[in-house]
Amino acid sequence: MKVKGVAYRTIWVNGDGWSVGIIDQTKLPHAFVTTNLTSWEEAAHAIKAMIVRGAPLIGATGAYGLALAMRADPSDAMLEKAHTVINETRPTAINLKWALDRVRNALHNQPTSSRAAIAYQVAAEIADDDVATCSSIGDHGLKIIDALYEKAGRKRTINILTHCNAGWLATVDWGTAIAPIYKAHDAGIPVHVWVDETRPRNQGASLTAWELNSHGVPHTVIVDNAGGHLMQHGSVDMCIVGTDRTTREGDVCNKIGTYLKALAAHDNGVPFYVALPHSTIDWTIRDGVKEIPIEERAQEEVTVMSGRTSDGEIVPVTITPEGSKAANFGFDVTPARLVTGLITERGVCAASEAGLTKLYPEFA
Amino acid sequence: MKVKGVAYRTIWVNGDGWSVGIIDQTKLPHAFVTTNLTSWEEAAHAIKAMIVRGAPLIGATGAYGLALAMRADPSDAMLEKAHTVINETRPTAINLKWALDRVRNALHNQPTSSRAAIAYQVAAEIADDDVATCSSIGDHGLKIIDALYEKAGRKRTINILTHCNAGWLATVDWGTAIAPIYKAHDAGIPVHVWVDETRPRNQGASLTAWELNSHGVPHTVIVDNAGGHLMQHGSVDMCIVGTDRTTREGDVCNKIGTYLKALAAHDNGVPFYVALPHSTIDWTIRDGVKEIPIEERAQEEVTVMSGRTSDGEIVPVTITPEGSKAANFGFDVTPARLVTGLITERGVCAASEAGLTKLYPEFA
Repeated sequence: MKVKGVAYRTIWVNGDGWSVGIIDQTKLPHAFVTTNLTSWEEAAHAIKAMIVRGAPLIGATGAYGLALAMRADPSDAMLEKAHTVINETRPTAINLKWALDRVRNALHNQPTSSRAAIAYQVAAEIADDDVATCSSIGDHGLKIIDALYEKAGRKRTINILTHCNAGWLATVDWGTAIAPIYKAHDAGIPVHVWVDETRPRNQGASLTAWELNSHGVPHTVIVDNAGGHLMQHGSVDMCIVGTDRTTREGDVCNKIGTYLKALAAHDNGVPFYVALPHSTIDWTIRDGVKEIPIEERAQEEVTVMSGRTSDGEIVPVTITPEGSKAANFGFDVTPARLVTGLITERGVCAASEAGLTKLYPEFA
Repeated sequence: MKVKGVAYRTIWVNGDGWSVGIIDQTKLPHAFVTTNLTSWEEAAHAIKAMIVRGAPLIGATGAYGLALAMRADPSDAMLEKAHTVINETRPTAINLKWALDRVRNALHNQPTSSRAAIAYQVAAEIADDDVATCSSIGDHGLKIIDALYEKAGRKRTINILTHCNAGWLATVDWGTAIAPIYKAHDAGIPVHVWVDETRPRNQGASLTAWELNSHGVPHTVIVDNAGGHLMQHGSVDMCIVGTDRTTREGDVCNKIGTYLKALAAHDNGVPFYVALPHSTIDWTIRDGVKEIPIEERAQEEVTVMSGRTSDGEIVPVTITPEGSKAANFGFDVTPARLVTGLITERGVCAASEAGLTKLYPEFA
């Protein structure tokens, strides 16, 4: 998508043919800064420190990380080491492992002399595939929004609530949950987005608001507490969120707080959709609450917040009393029973094994 | 309760016999600062600007505001003016009006010469009554916590989740939702409190954490998004929250986000209790979602956050992008069907008209 009129992806190979450019998402929404990855350790750090984030973008970054590793040392030992370390940076995101495995599989039994080139090629394919996948998710989700607009007599704005950032910043382009919104907006359907702030890291208030603002999509930032009230009062036509990991039976592991919004949607008859590329599906597990390990992150993400002062300076401030500790769980699991449908690149299906395997018969 | 070893209430008459001392709660948790109200306009401002907050404390402050008004000018015109202006500072809190009415009724047909003294006396009664009420709520709630502790074989810590601040800072002393926790802690029951941050004003992270910390009650601050995950994993034994307004049928209007926690508690079989003094019951309304007006507050409460820098300075920082607006709803309504029980100063009852009128037959 465009930033100040210039088309960007969230990850790219620079003109030198090997270093990898990314947007430093920790600087958003206050500044648009790009930075370069020149080693696999830097790629691992970028994922760990959430300089890049979002399941699809993490996957692409991991893949380019292996390419950087192969450029430095195309040995089996390096391949295993980089694969292991990068994979451990974010244990919940299933398609980080998927992307790393795809690169490693492509390098299997290849001569060391060609490994770097192959790795870069596979990483580029992963990035291009993601753009095509997200665009397709957008097209399928657009039909749902259009149906709601039709139901509303094509007369009023369609209000959509989203949590966290599953926009183009979370992918290589387009986004997952936000792709249908961009497609609807571009098709002339009047949409307005309720943007959950998404504590503790505020990806909604900082990233989703920033990218919707850049693209000109009407939106309003709300605290994570507000969605239930809005749904009780008919102010939300649908919810769309992303997912970091989806089980075979349609349970959805997404940013902490997603489950609470799904409960409110269910209690108020508001459709709750989850948009996902197939790479986030973990076909090996069924019960998300029992089987998905939930990442616990540093308590400072809760106790310290960053923002810009009236002088325009970006400063961190502590918001809790001295002596009070905090806990910081990164994700929660929304049971399939609360999900109206899954929007995939192959179409929309029920959040169930039957629904998913109808679209993906190769995993039946 | 005590602050640095000194017993405080949240509101008191100073040694001069007329000016009213309060704690400036906007400075917490970073600094403990008291300030004086010397006019009814200052009392109104203190409520409006949330220098004092919490339904019972707002009521007591409103009452002292009328006393200050009567000291300045004991006319009927002043009484009506101060009543109207103070009442409009926080439209959702039912017991602000209740306290103002109690003072006004006491002044009815009284000579102007004695009005100030009567108003101070009634305000003091309101404050003393609140302390007795909250202590009694604590005693009744203690029995519920003790029963959970008994069920756990008196062997492990009881984990209690609370939202916003319904502690002693929200009342004159003891608190409502936190009173049972203080009583349990003082009785030697090991309790641990999950403190919801409570965006946008962070009353949980700043006030509840501060007062639990001062009293030595173990607690952990969490973002508002985390409670559902904790309940899914058995880490919450019960929820206790306060209420700003309770309907005749047991619907509860409390800080925005309470409804989401009640949904999660219901979905996971976690008892969800609401602690309240009778003054928060609005016997004239039944359906909270339809009948309670929800206060919309300034969007800057969402977009700007305050905290202390590494230098110890308290600064406000903007956390949203330029160009993105925010909406700020102060409260939501939790339907009675999601409430396990109401903890009142007269005992615990079902969240229903039958439950409430059994405890309060005078309103049957």
